[in-house]
Amino acid sequence: MTTSDTLRQTRDHLWLHLTNHARLAAGGEVPVITRAEGAYFWDDRGQRFLDGLSGLFAVNVGHGRPELAEAAARQIRELDYFPIWGHVHPRAAELAEALAERAPGDLNRVFFTNSGSESVETAWKLAKQYFRAVGQPTRHKVISRAISYHGTTQGALSITGLPQLRAPFEPLVPSGHRAPTTDRYRAPAHLREDEAAFGRWAADRIAEAIEAEGPETVAAIFLEPVQNSGAAIPPPAGYLARVREIADRYGVLLVADEVITSFGRVGDAFAINRYGVTPDIITGGKGLTSGYVPAGVAVVSDRLFEPFTRPEHTFAHGLTFAGHPVAAAVALENLAIFEREKLNERVRDHEDAFAATLAGLRDLPIVGDVRGAGYFWGVVLVKDQHTREPFTGPERRRLIDESLAPALRAAGLHARIDERGDPAILLAPPTVVGPEEFTFVEQVLRSALTDAWRGL
Amino acid sequence: MTTSDTLRQTRDHLWLHLTNHARLAAGGEVPVITRAEGAYFWDDRGQRFLDGLSGLFAVNVGHGRPELAEAAARQIRELDYFPIWGHVHPRAAELAEALAERAPGDLNRVFFTNSGSESVETAWKLAKQYFRAVGQPTRHKVISRAISYHGTTQGALSITGLPQLRAPFEPLVPSGHRAPTTDRYRAPAHLREDEAAFGRWAADRIAEAIEAEGPETVAAIFLEPVQNSGAAIPPPAGYLARVREIADRYGVLLVADEVITSFGRVGDAFAINRYGVTPDIITGGKGLTSGYVPAGVAVVSDRLFEPFTRPEHTFAHGLTFAGHPVAAAVALENLAIFEREKLNERVRDHEDAFAATLAGLRDLPIVGDVRGAGYFWGVVLVKDQHTREPFTGPERRRLIDESLAPALRAAGLHARIDERGDPAILLAPPTVVGPEEFTFVEQVLRSALTDAWRGL
Repeated sequence: MTTSDTLRQTRDHLWLHLTNHARLAAGGEVPVITRAEGAYFWDDRGQRFLDGLSGLFAVNVGHGRPELAEAAARQIRELDYFPIWGHVHPRAAELAEALAERAPGDLNRVFFTNSGSESVETAWKLAKQYFRAVGQPTRHKVISRAISYHGTTQGALSITGLPQLRAPFEPLVPSGHRAPTTDRYRAPAHLREDEAAFGRWAADRIAEAIEAEGPETVAAIFLEPVQNSGAAIPPPAGYLARVREIADRYGVLLVADEVITSFGRVGDAFAINRYGVTPDIITGGKGLTSGYVPAGVAVVSDRLFEPFTRPEHTFAHGLTFAGHPVAAAVALENLAIFEREKLNERVRDHEDAFAATLAGLRDLPIVGDVRGAGYFWGVVLVKDQHTREPFTGPERRRLIDESLAPALRAAGLHARIDERGDPAILLAPPTVVGPEEFTFVEQVLRSALTDAWRGL
Repeated sequence: MTTSDTLRQTRDHLWLHLTNHARLAAGGEVPVITRAEGAYFWDDRGQRFLDGLSGLFAVNVGHGRPELAEAAARQIRELDYFPIWGHVHPRAAELAEALAERAPGDLNRVFFTNSGSESVETAWKLAKQYFRAVGQPTRHKVISRAISYHGTTQGALSITGLPQLRAPFEPLVPSGHRAPTTDRYRAPAHLREDEAAFGRWAADRIAEAIEAEGPETVAAIFLEPVQNSGAAIPPPAGYLARVREIADRYGVLLVADEVITSFGRVGDAFAINRYGVTPDIITGGKGLTSGYVPAGVAVVSDRLFEPFTRPEHTFAHGLTFAGHPVAAAVALENLAIFEREKLNERVRDHEDAFAATLAGLRDLPIVGDVRGAGYFWGVVLVKDQHTREPFTGPERRRLIDESLAPALRAAGLHARIDERGDPAILLAPPTVVGPEEFTFVEQVLRSALTDAWRGL
């Protein structure tokens, strides 16, 4: 198999995801990635890249772990596949216990899926059937936040806060309603300086949305503890606790969508543990197996499971591959790697250094904000650092397509250039990186952003 | 890890799929499956079972294939994970070509997913965005068939023809409309004897549904070539060709949902190839990797891809793990096993013998119908073979829970007892079985059905 075969096969037969095919169809190329190890991957020309995005927020223990290869192969030889429908197998049960141990409060019940989208679908469907089971059948709506991404299947898409992703597919499930997110950089001017006041304001917008819909029709609030889309937006002090209070006040469930933030991303198995709040459901995916095998999960409170311990209620939802023996074996070994190498501790030990290194970029006039948590950071770009003036559409295209994207590629840094809020560079490297890689990232960004600024 | 650990962990922490938890919560047990090889698996007590369901319509090359273990481990060591978003890697491109080669007509473009549900979501979302791209923005509805199952995420669920699965979660996507399926056994009496007339009648019900909704609002027809839910319902002669004509007449897309029927189930990579009809999209899952790693796919016609080769259209849909290197490597090796061992040919060579062996059960008064194709058969049970009188609800429970299910388990046969239409025993064994296993199945069913009949 030569590279030109791969490109030909791609042009003729593959549909790349969220990728415009015009250039490829006209004979253009896309990078062909052929191998990976640790925090690095290589393309077919031998160029090395720092994987500043863990593939796609997934490879949290780093690439090419032989112990995960062995876990997968061993499990296939023992029990390749069996469904957890009326039967069970040891790996799914072990992994359920391991996840319950790591989840907060009474989140002790584990429903497996194959992807983050399916985890979000599961959480919402569970909320709907739960409320019908406990005699509150009018609760079906969801409040989620602006610019949030919760998945691509049509339920998850219906509660995604990105209108441009929903528009081509409407009508969708008619139950999604939005509140603002916690982007303090773009907050109303009078709220920017006082973090606690901004947090109260943003949380109260959720209460307002619940009131507007009618509390007896609202099933759940979905939010990411640190919101990915819009560039690593952290919760202001006091915000998550106040959202929890609001959920309780209106009898609404709180779902922490941790498809991105769990399994080391911010230095804990679940980010929510670092913020001291207990949701009713946590959704996960990506990092559960460090991306080596597709898998997802919803971890659910005992309270929500209780009605389903009665003969009259069965959750009418099931997935062929959920709790897959191979995925579960890899996830268990992935958790074991975290323990052996103390990777959550590593993230907590190094997060301030990562933050400080990136914060140094604030001396560049194009950098508007640097925010995030753990190993999950966004560097927000603006036309004017003082006025916070955003880029126009054509400026964005020039900035990103002609300057930043090629510069990062040439320098060997894989990062996401997020455009769903302000243009921003998103960083989510594997947990194995440290000060040496932080410095490399800073140097590449300093050079690329300086050149981009000059080119505008 | 002892068995009692597995059961304790399951009771305390695992949410089994489509399983009522009352008995487990009260201290009951579920079977613990610990290993598998070929057409058999074993529980923790050492009992052997013939896997008459390929796990869950998935393990089409049989269990415990060392070459699939090696393919997974080798790929993890080389490139564990990278997304196919703006990048590509060799295995995804190779697999796309291999699938396009096996698909009919101009179905040459491959969009990967992680599950059958996600494949169905993809096909529907693609149909919607395609019609907007070509200036027919009012087309969004789907006609599917009664008693059909198309998946569990909320888009796929909206077009599933099982009201009891939708009811706990409504409102869903408001675009799903139903036509009758092709269960000739339960057809209007005047249509039962003439297969071609029944096929015309059933196909024309789809045209009627399109007319009722308004053709300019209908995007697609979704159907399984052989419908699983309701017990392996095959297409009458001429039916699929007439549905194709109807789709063309109204400008509606035809989606063959082959999550169950592909990759050997009826003796071809895609069942539709055996019926001589070319749909616009084929959805797949389960057997693509023989279930060893979660994966799904939508294979799409060149015509549907064409608008997306232009700069102004990008399919607004993407999945983190789609085209996963490990899943793709396992799928490629799975296809290689099919070639090396001529497994499709094996199914075609043996299907008549399987059918004849099962048809022998028609001498039992409880057996109403035996139908299917390839290695995919339903044995339909009725109270009165002559009048076709169905069982009442309480009779069903006694028949299934107290008699059939325990009898099959005791005899070591894993099959599905389907209850979505008439009660039926569904068989979908791995492609490696032959006459010896057919005879075993027939003997177990003969004994279990005879006892069940006596116990009524």
